[in-house]
Amino acid sequence: MADSARPARPARRRYGLRPTMKDVAARAGVGLKTVSRVVNGEPGVTPDTERRVQEAITALGFRRNDSARILRKGRTSSIGLVLEDLADPFYAPLSRAVEEVARAHGALLINGSSAEDEERERELVLALCARRVDGLVIIPAGADHRYLEPEIAAGVATVFVDRPAARIEADAVLSRSFEGAREGVAHLIAHGHRRIGFIGDLPRIHTAAERLRGYRAAMAEAGLPVDESWVALGPTHPERVRADAERMVEGRGSAAAPVTALLTGNNRVTVTVVRVPAVRERRVALVGFDDFELADLLTPPVTVIAQEPALLGRKAAELLFRRLEGADDAPRRVELPTRLIPRGSGEIPPRS
Amino acid sequence: MADSARPARPARRRYGLRPTMKDVAARAGVGLKTVSRVVNGEPGVTPDTERRVQEAITALGFRRNDSARILRKGRTSSIGLVLEDLADPFYAPLSRAVEEVARAHGALLINGSSAEDEERERELVLALCARRVDGLVIIPAGADHRYLEPEIAAGVATVFVDRPAARIEADAVLSRSFEGAREGVAHLIAHGHRRIGFIGDLPRIHTAAERLRGYRAAMAEAGLPVDESWVALGPTHPERVRADAERMVEGRGSAAAPVTALLTGNNRVTVTVVRVPAVRERRVALVGFDDFELADLLTPPVTVIAQEPALLGRKAAELLFRRLEGADDAPRRVELPTRLIPRGSGEIPPRS
Repeated sequence: MADSARPARPARRRYGLRPTMKDVAARAGVGLKTVSRVVNGEPGVTPDTERRVQEAITALGFRRNDSARILRKGRTSSIGLVLEDLADPFYAPLSRAVEEVARAHGALLINGSSAEDEERERELVLALCARRVDGLVIIPAGADHRYLEPEIAAGVATVFVDRPAARIEADAVLSRSFEGAREGVAHLIAHGHRRIGFIGDLPRIHTAAERLRGYRAAMAEAGLPVDESWVALGPTHPERVRADAERMVEGRGSAAAPVTALLTGNNRVTVTVVRVPAVRERRVALVGFDDFELADLLTPPVTVIAQEPALLGRKAAELLFRRLEGADDAPRRVELPTRLIPRGSGEIPPRS
Repeated sequence: MADSARPARPARRRYGLRPTMKDVAARAGVGLKTVSRVVNGEPGVTPDTERRVQEAITALGFRRNDSARILRKGRTSSIGLVLEDLADPFYAPLSRAVEEVARAHGALLINGSSAEDEERERELVLALCARRVDGLVIIPAGADHRYLEPEIAAGVATVFVDRPAARIEADAVLSRSFEGAREGVAHLIAHGHRRIGFIGDLPRIHTAAERLRGYRAAMAEAGLPVDESWVALGPTHPERVRADAERMVEGRGSAAAPVTALLTGNNRVTVTVVRVPAVRERRVALVGFDDFELADLLTPPVTVIAQEPALLGRKAAELLFRRLEGADDAPRRVELPTRLIPRGSGEIPPRS
């Protein structure tokens, strides 16, 4: 029992000593069913009795145990969100948007990140399912989501966002990565560039592959050859990205001439490339996939292909709750357009 | 039952149709107790029987229902993290660090944000307690946490981070806001400034109040008067911050002369102030509380008082798990030092 004058310390031995409905009933001098009615907002209790029960609840510090309700009703009022990285700023507005939609539906958000690791994604997803989340919004790291089929069959609604599911049919909310990258490269070509590099994320990631495809399409449509030394996909840690950027703009390790422009595959790559001295000194043109905070205040300001991460999150969460409300039409793929924002770095002409 | 050849659709009517241990026992041709032993990794099952049970589990898509275990054992292996804003980049590395510690302890992380609203914080905290989290890491918005006393008494371990609890004794992991702000202002004074403004967060937020106190202390120690028009606390949305910055650097609405330098109270304030044309045109010196991505690439690069958000999160989560493991000594206050990083904006001399 709580003593409000003296803050109590948590101590393991106290687990399980929470007040129960029985304690509330005894203190209020009513039956267990009456307490249950008050707690669950059911009718059939007089205002005076309700007041006594509420006083007993307050005095004892009773809280309804939702774990019991989960078992009884099969619904937990929580959804899981599996991110790639809690610390990537691209996912921050996406998370917040999912949280806002969940909150509007009275559901809690359980969050976790896969760190771009297939096994960790699977572990996390199954742990969330074991906790009986109603549904999942997943930014997938894995290449095979068949492990989710029993969960989906058992009623866990699942919406993929940013990247589609692999080897199962499932709802997905995506940005148009192919079209965005193609537009970015066409923009550089329109400003006179012919030797353009692409530095992207791991090739197994859907968005990285799609953006590479967009890069190749734009080059092909302009009749420009692509030297394979101009394409570098890999992890987005700064050392790798910096090495690839330096190599491309200096023309090392290749018979082909150095690139005069770069398309960077996401915001993590871009914020590293803008720091590379060789890129700055040679006035290499740059278009970055993803907008990012302060992009417009850099010198030169960074031209980007902007996605709408908050809208991705909102659309995914809304689709999830539509599924939970019973919509059982075929899996959908929602695609959101990207937007080219010219700011300066993408309009630098090639060095003669 | 799952059909692995055809992806199934979630449909509400299927809730509650998950396979049970009874179904597994029937399919494997063993008793319920045997299935329970296999599921919970208890001894006393032959390898051949275990294999049959595992096959039945796979075939049926059975998952252990952790809700039942919660009721039985009183531990959920999850912790709650209550943030102020999921989308503030300051909290991203803090969240990730809490997640890493939780993961190392085999616990899931349940996340939510208060949006700096006392009532929403309380709702979220109590919803998490009702879900039987083992413990909570809280960045508090509220001014009275006595509502948590019954939960703490009932065994929910609670650690506050970034800001302390109000009106209860509880563990807290904080940055030295007072000392950091004092050092930042002393730095500006050492570079010749005498008229220095402070733009901070809402005055009821502990860190905002502490940083204001540090500002006043540094001014007093240097024998400099503070005109009250040089101090502006409020919400961190760009319109308010921009208006206060313009007013201070232009000296409008005050008999006092314009400020020649500013201390900004957190990263949200700083990223707005660096955009204000009047600040840039008048070459107003700037020291920002909190480091932020790309601060060093702006013109001029931004001098900051850096905190270590990842370390705040890690220390808070480690303290939480120590409490959960039984440490019941008095509540602790852990204070982490800040670090002044001179980069250019804080070393601009005053306009003569």
